[in-house]
Amino acid sequence: MAGNTFGKFFTVSTFGESHGIALGGVVDGCPPGLALCEEDLQVDLDRRKPGTSRYTTARREDDEVQILSGVFEGKTTGTSIGLLIKNKDQRSQDYSNIANRFRPGHADYTYQQKYGMRDYRGGGRSSARETAIRVAAGGIAKKFLKQVYGIEIHGFLSQLGPIGIDSVDYDVINTNPFFCPDESKLEALDEYMRDLKKSGDSIGAKVSVVATNMPVGLGEPVFDRLDADIAGAMMGINAVKGVEVGDGFEVITQKGSEHRDTLTPEGFTSNHSGGVLGGISTGQDLVVHMALKPTSSISVPGKTIDTEGNAIDIVTKGRHDPCVGIRAVPIAEAMLALVLMDHCLRHRAQNADVMSQTPVIPGNAAK
Amino acid sequence: MAGNTFGKFFTVSTFGESHGIALGGVVDGCPPGLALCEEDLQVDLDRRKPGTSRYTTARREDDEVQILSGVFEGKTTGTSIGLLIKNKDQRSQDYSNIANRFRPGHADYTYQQKYGMRDYRGGGRSSARETAIRVAAGGIAKKFLKQVYGIEIHGFLSQLGPIGIDSVDYDVINTNPFFCPDESKLEALDEYMRDLKKSGDSIGAKVSVVATNMPVGLGEPVFDRLDADIAGAMMGINAVKGVEVGDGFEVITQKGSEHRDTLTPEGFTSNHSGGVLGGISTGQDLVVHMALKPTSSISVPGKTIDTEGNAIDIVTKGRHDPCVGIRAVPIAEAMLALVLMDHCLRHRAQNADVMSQTPVIPGNAAK
Amino acid sequence: MAGNTFGKFFTVSTFGESHGIALGGVVDGCPPGLALCEEDLQVDLDRRKPGTSRYTTARREDDEVQILSGVFEGKTTGTSIGLLIKNKDQRSQDYSNIANRFRPGHADYTYQQKYGMRDYRGGGRSSARETAIRVAAGGIAKKFLKQVYGIEIHGFLSQLGPIGIDSVDYDVINTNPFFCPDESKLEALDEYMRDLKKSGDSIGAKVSVVATNMPVGLGEPVFDRLDADIAGAMMGINAVKGVEVGDGFEVITQKGSEHRDTLTPEGFTSNHSGGVLGGISTGQDLVVHMALKPTSSISVPGKTIDTEGNAIDIVTKGRHDPCVGIRAVPIAEAMLALVLMDHCLRHRAQNADVMSQTPVIPGNAAK
Amino acid sequence: MAGNTFGKFFTVSTFGESHGIALGGVVDGCPPGLALCEEDLQVDLDRRKPGTSRYTTARREDDEVQILSGVFEGKTTGTSIGLLIKNKDQRSQDYSNIANRFRPGHADYTYQQKYGMRDYRGGGRSSARETAIRVAAGGIAKKFLKQVYGIEIHGFLSQLGPIGIDSVDYDVINTNPFFCPDESKLEALDEYMRDLKKSGDSIGAKVSVVATNMPVGLGEPVFDRLDADIAGAMMGINAVKGVEVGDGFEVITQKGSEHRDTLTPEGFTSNHSGGVLGGISTGQDLVVHMALKPTSSISVPGKTIDTEGNAIDIVTKGRHDPCVGIRAVPIAEAMLALVLMDHCLRHRAQNADVMSQTPVIPGNAAK
Repeated sequence: MAGNTFGKFFTVSTFGESHGIALGGVVDGCPPGLALCEEDLQVDLDRRKPGTSRYTTARREDDEVQILSGVFEGKTTGTSIGLLIKNKDQRSQDYSNIANRFRPGHADYTYQQKYGMRDYRGGGRSSARETAIRVAAGGIAKKFLKQVYGIEIHGFLSQLGPIGIDSVDYDVINTNPFFCPDESKLEALDEYMRDLKKSGDSIGAKVSVVATNMPVGLGEPVFDRLDADIAGAMMGINAVKGVEVGDGFEVITQKGSEHRDTLTPEGFTSNHSGGVLGGISTGQDLVVHMALKPTSSISVPGKTIDTEGNAIDIVTKGRHDPCVGIRAVPIAEAMLALVLMDHCLRHRAQNADVMSQTPVIPGNAAK
Repeated sequence: MAGNTFGKFFTVSTFGESHGIALGGVVDGCPPGLALCEEDLQVDLDRRKPGTSRYTTARREDDEVQILSGVFEGKTTGTSIGLLIKNKDQRSQDYSNIANRFRPGHADYTYQQKYGMRDYRGGGRSSARETAIRVAAGGIAKKFLKQVYGIEIHGFLSQLGPIGIDSVDYDVINTNPFFCPDESKLEALDEYMRDLKKSGDSIGAKVSVVATNMPVGLGEPVFDRLDADIAGAMMGINAVKGVEVGDGFEVITQKGSEHRDTLTPEGFTSNHSGGVLGGISTGQDLVVHMALKPTSSISVPGKTIDTEGNAIDIVTKGRHDPCVGIRAVPIAEAMLALVLMDHCLRHRAQNADVMSQTPVIPGNAAK
Repeated sequence: MAGNTFGKFFTVSTFGESHGIALGGVVDGCPPGLALCEEDLQVDLDRRKPGTSRYTTARREDDEVQILSGVFEGKTTGTSIGLLIKNKDQRSQDYSNIANRFRPGHADYTYQQKYGMRDYRGGGRSSARETAIRVAAGGIAKKFLKQVYGIEIHGFLSQLGPIGIDSVDYDVINTNPFFCPDESKLEALDEYMRDLKKSGDSIGAKVSVVATNMPVGLGEPVFDRLDADIAGAMMGINAVKGVEVGDGFEVITQKGSEHRDTLTPEGFTSNHSGGVLGGISTGQDLVVHMALKPTSSISVPGKTIDTEGNAIDIVTKGRHDPCVGIRAVPIAEAMLALVLMDHCLRHRAQNADVMSQTPVIPGNAAK
Repeated sequence: MAGNTFGKFFTVSTFGESHGIALGGVVDGCPPGLALCEEDLQVDLDRRKPGTSRYTTARREDDEVQILSGVFEGKTTGTSIGLLIKNKDQRSQDYSNIANRFRPGHADYTYQQKYGMRDYRGGGRSSARETAIRVAAGGIAKKFLKQVYGIEIHGFLSQLGPIGIDSVDYDVINTNPFFCPDESKLEALDEYMRDLKKSGDSIGAKVSVVATNMPVGLGEPVFDRLDADIAGAMMGINAVKGVEVGDGFEVITQKGSEHRDTLTPEGFTSNHSGGVLGGISTGQDLVVHMALKPTSSISVPGKTIDTEGNAIDIVTKGRHDPCVGIRAVPIAEAMLALVLMDHCLRHRAQNADVMSQTPVIPGNAAK
């Protein structure tokens, strides 16, 4: 059934398969008057697009997005915005060998069982290629959030296999192909990835996203909490298997006296909560982490079954990222932007005045 | 704005505050013909209800649920089901001292900032008391899932502070006040909680939920994925700060050759995925974990501010669970049941035939 | 499937059958700070309730509504509002004779076919009794609309069988049991209804609802237009078979030069459009009409079939309104209030400033 | 706010303006396995498209629809379907004179007030040009309904100004440019339209849509009734001011003994209800009527104001249909198809078995 629309008040409906004619979508609910052009969206599409470094798939796509409606004389009109990205380098012949087999770790088996058929070319709709449209749509949200609320969203790689990070410098993120915020780890990452690629294997990763300059009050309990919607959005990204807000799984061994963030007249003195209490933003930085599984398409031989149920050997060919976590960074940013945009609009509906009221304490004292 | 309805096809809309007159809700979308009575729902309400052991709040509530509509001659009619639980032991005088201060780690501050006011009695709507209705509604879903699909849902405590578990025996879960599935840990838990209570502090926990006898094909990519909806549902439970499906955060250091679950004619040989691939259920056991923060209401003195922004000292009185994670077990089960019910109905809408088709491999070979 | 929630941003989810224990609902999305008490809602419930005149059903119900949550110290808190109305005078024995037969013109047949079973007592969920909760929920919306925007909603009987009206005086509406705005027709109505009742038959009616002091800009094209949502809401009232906005079916024979409302610096010079252009409110009075079919439960003997498909004779006993159109007046007002409330909130989300901007022309020049 | 998505389970999200680059949409929820190609959709697009007769606008558009996704090897895959229609004959210079004035009867004024700006070229998003995508999406629904349930949808012109129809022959509808089902009226229509065009004025119309071979049981009370959703869908078509189901406004003067449709073992003996009782389909023909206002763009001079509020004279130039009602026929068919598709899927979710159960009486005995 219908499941390709994200959001309630600011919605994004998408379509498109890995090797289809085009990817596209409808972005609905953007307030009028926002200056918007293709270049605004292209920045993140270029960050996400394949073929930009030797550590991502060799598939080459320009990922040029077209805005087909909803913008007039350089500004949004308040009507729905049509987006389109044409597929170019499809090479569907690469995938003909997977038509009648289920690649382990892939959605081949579940799509086949669910729908009774599947577009097997490059994974069809289950391919992460569809996230290009999410990134484009997220770009609209990002621009609105920055302009109207000053909110900024910073995504980065916080762990790749055994290599973690020791420091976060937002200015470093976009200077390297790993979206790594810690300059001291770049060499180790480079070396690790080189070896990994040689081995034909893949590796998992941890990605973090932080929103700064957050307003207080976003989130609609009890079900449409800000953190609940974020968790859904992040787990909905291909390959994500875990989501944390703030201290996440570390809270299991924390005591209450240790975890609770103290409020002072100057602000919170810590941010264990990750910027959400009771499902509503506190005004602190919003801190989200996620775990991404290793790419399933690897050249290490494995075993699986074909569509008839027979045991077979498999080596996945084609062009794949050895660590899907890397390119997930701009996708995670986009999804967080979509969630925040949705909640900003919802909050405005409730009470425009509350939104602009002065918080009892300065929101960003403790990040 | 409206945020108190869960689900799209099988929906639960709830109301009620910790110290209001009653909690209640509307359960909509239940197919007709399901045998249903209050006793069916009372089982889990009793598991969740406060006052049952010395490790939970001393507040006493019968939590007797009434079915007000939607059932006729012992069977659901297909129309909406009204649920009501009256509050009894409200003692709102306990909470008068928090009217003008923000308890650290609580939603006091965010509710006040969002709404410009709040029902401060026992946390009002932000109290986990509202989850009683979720548990009642989840009971309806549980019964349907079991009867129509054979799906069973097992929730349990998988870690409490430093104490983990070594084995999972579903039969042990309901024999102890911790919902712990490992009998060998009961004594340690008992001792730990006794000491904790004395200290006036609280502790975090990890809760797991497993659905067995899962059908293949549940989940609606790309946004309404089964795992995405589960993550949203679980993060929407009070105090949850992290959610995992399958191996969760362990995937960060896994290689692709290690993570991918091999398919054989006899079934999957492992379940790293936790029963979801591409957002769709595989037929394996559905495995979900979540991290719950320690209760913020503790008698350890702390610092905070009042509603005027002045620094003050605080000791939270009242009756509170030293580990909210324990009572979260039936809540987590209920939320998983609601998600699965929603997706079963969605899948039926797509193609009733596909649902009953024989999977290529036996779904439950590897759990 | 789930179909008992109305609205998108301001939602009302209802439950309850004609002869069940209670009717109730969850009203979600009401902004915080609105002064609200049961008396506010009781006014319209009393206007709607049965047993108030000899021209409505003799069933006696106090229809006393309870607010169970969402209001604290006399004001809405922004959280969901629980409503409950207990059924009292149920007399379900009256209806035992319809358990195994389909009353013509009733939903007996369609409910039985759809659900495979039905609560036959008094029509169960298909009875207009459920509209009591709509009226209560509408009361909340009415109060908000009046207080925040100055919008007022006037419903009235504009035709009953052959008796139309010549003039509309809002002050007359609530002075007579017909909700008729034309004092000169009261005697004729009285006489007509007396004769009708004697004959055991029933009659159709036309009901109109007008919203005054409308803001410009409500409605979300292209699908969630204001008029589209109104049409859906009105056709969703029991017994309604037609809905018009503005000139309605008269436009079929109108020329463009005749129909189009001229704009002048002083306002529109006419209101053929009924206050909606392109699905968006113009600021003129919003004018809606609807046609209600005659009550199907009449004591005139008829023919039908039983649940086995056998032909039988039928005389519908029980207590019924000879003209359901009359009591539909407060229901229609409530539904219009719910639609307007939903759209006011949606419009606020878009741009709070636009809402308060001065219209180019005075909105209410031509009503 | 977001308002460009239609449906709940089978959804259509659209974008595009009259003189933008393209119109498009996302159709989501179509079950897998339906044979589908562009030609299937082109049939109705050609019926709707402008420039086909001298009684419609002279604008020429091929309205060639492209299916961009969701179909693989000639069959739907169960994933979202992307649709695109490029605009060709845009001639936006025609409309430069309306940039700073409000055409009476148009949405110019309301769009400007709502959004604070507008795309004035050809009416932008408020133009009926967007309905091309509705027709394309409706084509998918039509094919599914016909193939899976045998449901057929027949739209026709039932009145044009003073000219009504005496008989309905479905075979005649598509043989003439008026979609008139009564051959004996064609000459009168031709003559009337010729004179009208000369006068530079426009005329209203009545359009009817009938669905045959309806299953029993579609519709989800109490709010998502079949007739309520139909009323919303029809009133949401540009220029529609009234909607009726079955006898519609005629019921005002009907008695209960006259209106109620008698059930017999052979079926209903009449169809005053129009095929809906209690919001659920009866299995009889579904009968819907609607009233469409005369085109507001006429060459008869009129008065209006400019965007500064000054009084001015206006003559609407450009290329317009003298009777928009005519081309509304395929649009109304499409909207009915979308509503029925949505409800068929919803009903399947409830109980696939009920859907196929044998009705107590033959559904189509009385149409």
